[in-house]
Amino acid sequence: MSEKRKKLAIIVHSGTLDRLYCAFILGSTATAMGMETHLYFTFWGLNVLVKGGLEKAGLPATYKHMEEPMKKKLKEMNYPTPYELLKRMKASGLLKIYACSPTMEMFGVKKEDFIPEVDEIAGATTFLGLAADADITLLI
Amino acid sequence: MSEKRKKLAIIVHSGTLDRLYCAFILGSTATAMGMETHLYFTFWGLNVLVKGGLEKAGLPATYKHMEEPMKKKLKEMNYPTPYELLKRMKASGLLKIYACSPTMEMFGVKKEDFIPEVDEIAGATTFLGLAADADITLLI
Amino acid sequence: MSEKRKKLAIIVHSGTLDRLYCAFILGSTATAMGMETHLYFTFWGLNVLVKGGLEKAGLPATYKHMEEPMKKKLKEMNYPTPYELLKRMKASGLLKIYACSPTMEMFGVKKEDFIPEVDEIAGATTFLGLAADADITLLI
Repeated sequence: MSEKRKKLAIIVHSGTLDRLYCAFILGSTATAMGMETHLYFTFWGLNVLVKGGLEKAGLPATYKHMEEPMKKKLKEMNYPTPYELLKRMKASGLLKIYACSPTMEMFGVKKEDFIPEVDEIAGATTFLGLAADADITLLI
Repeated sequence: MSEKRKKLAIIVHSGTLDRLYCAFILGSTATAMGMETHLYFTFWGLNVLVKGGLEKAGLPATYKHMEEPMKKKLKEMNYPTPYELLKRMKASGLLKIYACSPTMEMFGVKKEDFIPEVDEIAGATTFLGLAADADITLLI
Repeated sequence: MSEKRKKLAIIVHSGTLDRLYCAFILGSTATAMGMETHLYFTFWGLNVLVKGGLEKAGLPATYKHMEEPMKKKLKEMNYPTPYELLKRMKASGLLKIYACSPTMEMFGVKKEDFIPEVDEIAGATTFLGLAADADITLLI
């Protein structure tokens, strides 16, 4: 009936603030544009899905000295936090969040540790299946 | 009339020498192959578009000890600098450089601070629009 | 005759354990799903193709303190090593490994230094040619 929705798929491997912001700004822009958005969290990225994880995210070693000034600047700008961006994407009805099952075992993370926005626990097969059909696929 | 040009789109999130070289070698190879090339600079990547920024790029914390030997080796090889690669791509007429507008606000960077090769100040909507139509999309 | 195989192409720029695992888990899942898989190793990634390189891979500066606990945990889980995952992909007959020729010159690496699983020494032209035709292209 309607034109096929465009689809964005991102593997979120990173757990640092600079890269989470990049993924979430792309994702929230995509959902605002009416694109179906799939975020697959693995490795360091998976750890930010644990309750309180998004709030603890900082900058990588290379840029550690800029962490406090950046957080201060973002607050002055009234810029949405990563969790606010994630909730905004979720509210669109176009976001699906996946947690990588082998990473959960490696880090000893359980389903009940996650924020409620996580939709599905899945392995790489699920991600590759949907990425093969996506219009844009990125890894961050 | 002619066959449709292939299109490469890269988000340049990184500002370190190892990753800039990777983006610019891919980009300059792509333009040499006749591909339309779009580089969207955000976060640390945006800072290298500021005049003098490309010259200051170094290695990340993990590989900091290799920065001086690597720069020396590249000079011995007469390898083009990142800025030379960028100018080479630009000369092909197939490169378009975008600077991420929200990052500019966050870092307090103004349009007049940039090197003249920057084509457009744009947000994620612009990038996603062109990436959805690209043959290859990467994030570095 | 048969349906066209899906194709996955990954640029492996990183040489750290967290990112190698991500690339190799995606690659081994892809080959298990019957996808043609192309891994193009450049920069730090190229160095892990040197004999003994995969065994030496550790975590980046940001997560260095987690290197020993993570290696211990992976051993307890009997998780395959990166080299075991690479051999598994290779055994599928669906994996092709490329080593980036300009990186070889920069690091002074010769063909005979590599593990025998490397298929081809190639430049960015080769990678872009196959990526333009791939279903999924990623950079890690």
